[in-house]
Amino acid sequence: MKQSKIKKLVTSIFLKYGLSKTAANISSDALINAELVGAYGHGLSRLRMYCNRIEKRLINPKPKIKIKNISQSITHIDANDSIGFVAADLGIKKAIKNAKRTGIGMVAISNSGHYGLSGYYAEQAVKKNLIAMIYTNAPPAIAPHGSIKSLFGTNPICFGSPTGSKIPFILDTSISMINRGKVRFAEKNNKKIPPGVALDKFGKPTTDAKKALKGVQLPIAGFRGSGLAWMVDILSGVFTGSSHAGKVKDPFEDFSRPQNVGHLFITFKTNLFVNNYKHRIKDNIRIIKGLPKIKGVKEIMYPGQNKYKRFKMNSKKNIKISKIIKRDLEALKNYAI
Amino acid sequence: MKQSKIKKLVTSIFLKYGLSKTAANISSDALINAELVGAYGHGLSRLRMYCNRIEKRLINPKPKIKIKNISQSITHIDANDSIGFVAADLGIKKAIKNAKRTGIGMVAISNSGHYGLSGYYAEQAVKKNLIAMIYTNAPPAIAPHGSIKSLFGTNPICFGSPTGSKIPFILDTSISMINRGKVRFAEKNNKKIPPGVALDKFGKPTTDAKKALKGVQLPIAGFRGSGLAWMVDILSGVFTGSSHAGKVKDPFEDFSRPQNVGHLFITFKTNLFVNNYKHRIKDNIRIIKGLPKIKGVKEIMYPGQNKYKRFKMNSKKNIKISKIIKRDLEALKNYAI
Repeated sequence: MKQSKIKKLVTSIFLKYGLSKTAANISSDALINAELVGAYGHGLSRLRMYCNRIEKRLINPKPKIKIKNISQSITHIDANDSIGFVAADLGIKKAIKNAKRTGIGMVAISNSGHYGLSGYYAEQAVKKNLIAMIYTNAPPAIAPHGSIKSLFGTNPICFGSPTGSKIPFILDTSISMINRGKVRFAEKNNKKIPPGVALDKFGKPTTDAKKALKGVQLPIAGFRGSGLAWMVDILSGVFTGSSHAGKVKDPFEDFSRPQNVGHLFITFKTNLFVNNYKHRIKDNIRIIKGLPKIKGVKEIMYPGQNKYKRFKMNSKKNIKISKIIKRDLEALKNYAI
Repeated sequence: MKQSKIKKLVTSIFLKYGLSKTAANISSDALINAELVGAYGHGLSRLRMYCNRIEKRLINPKPKIKIKNISQSITHIDANDSIGFVAADLGIKKAIKNAKRTGIGMVAISNSGHYGLSGYYAEQAVKKNLIAMIYTNAPPAIAPHGSIKSLFGTNPICFGSPTGSKIPFILDTSISMINRGKVRFAEKNNKKIPPGVALDKFGKPTTDAKKALKGVQLPIAGFRGSGLAWMVDILSGVFTGSSHAGKVKDPFEDFSRPQNVGHLFITFKTNLFVNNYKHRIKDNIRIIKGLPKIKGVKEIMYPGQNKYKRFKMNSKKNIKISKIIKRDLEALKNYAI
């Protein structure tokens, strides 16, 4: 399907479900961006879930978002259960503004929801020539080291930096072996997940996406990965005033209450301590790319490079719509308030 | 050997080598702390190296450290090749001061050296009821993903938070499978390293510490770990004005120039967005500790807990001195300027 057509369709669906024009636009842009970078688990496969949650008022279509400036650098946003995209869009814009004004910006968001890809927001700061560090928590998916029960989300660590070229450095890595979105995508499309990334609810290794969703995803690097996931839960949950310690609701499965996800954005100017950051980072990347390579490796890639390539390639094409998503779109567009 | 005796001895050695009284004290405290927490690779096994570098003026015993306040929150420190402990001590104190004043502090340090354990500095901020994020780069030890040549250091990610109890949450995790200090300790004591953590210089797996030091240490989690190490190099090297992209000198092997390590300290108040942080984090830890455990696991530990236990236990005992370190101490105390 043509991008412009999908954009129009998804926006109109969000409008039907009661989002404002701005909110519908922000949300459809984020979903389509996820499709274009190949992060299908964060794309259109989630549209139905968002609409279901709006219908049940677990996502507030007309939130009264409260913005509280703690200082010129520091801001708190209570998203009032807005759709995550809108809260995060506001948050990153505020974090950019704060950093531009004082050198460093910090924005904490509480009472938000799943916002898609952290890297999407980091990119916006990087475009304004800032470095960004972004943290968000998520519903239980990973067992803390030593436990057999999921509690941490896939809790991504995200870091973005300008590179002096048009392709930004965007590290956006979940702490699980693979993204929950990918497991969900596999489940929705009846595909298997790789071995070694998840256990079923009895603690046995599984490649069945459905069983994995009911079981435990494995963190990277054992105790270290578990510690990093814990750090993200503290920064985005405990610190921001959002849910934490496994209390963030699963948007697909738990319709008892709003998700109450927390996000933390930290942004700063690249030239605080050096006046030639672009030159320095260009050098850094050039040297690393010039290292001797493992046989069969064509190019040493920096984080974000592959995603950018996919984005560029996919931007020229129509977006492939699976049968299931087609069915979702059909059902949702016929929704009458 | 009694702690007080070692403390006196090590301080006197540093004084002989030309450090100021304050610098000698800070440095001996850091080395002894590393012994007490069981991080032997960052302890007395490094004393001789520090002294050798001071003697060759690769560490400046009387540095003219330049402190430049960029704003009330942001400070740059040019350490003028000071011993890393002194630069980091100054840096964390400044970062604490900035955060206490404005809510958030950021201190970048250039022209510094190896400072031991990041967690040691995070603890100081946590004692002042602040959250701390600390990054430092290090000499080449890990190959970027796709390359067969070491370039990134073990580049730890460090995060500290108050817990409402006397045991702080201190995540201090290198991005290599094991610390370079541990490999060095194994080499010095003719011990083997675990399998799967390093390759020799030909790219073959090895458990020989000597071969591993000449080869490549493996990052955690492949491309993800490599990306995290790259992030740390950007934050602590490119951004601070220090060496980066593999140019930080190995303190044991490269006596051509000062190390030029970079550090970045970010600190912030726990109560910026919530007024009950201690209560929230206590809850967080209590819930996670209460999860069902894997068979054989007695307690789910948070990062820093084990280290604290070792510190408490070792603080009551004499410090064990290996033959090699005894020899080092003997040689160094007889040094005459």
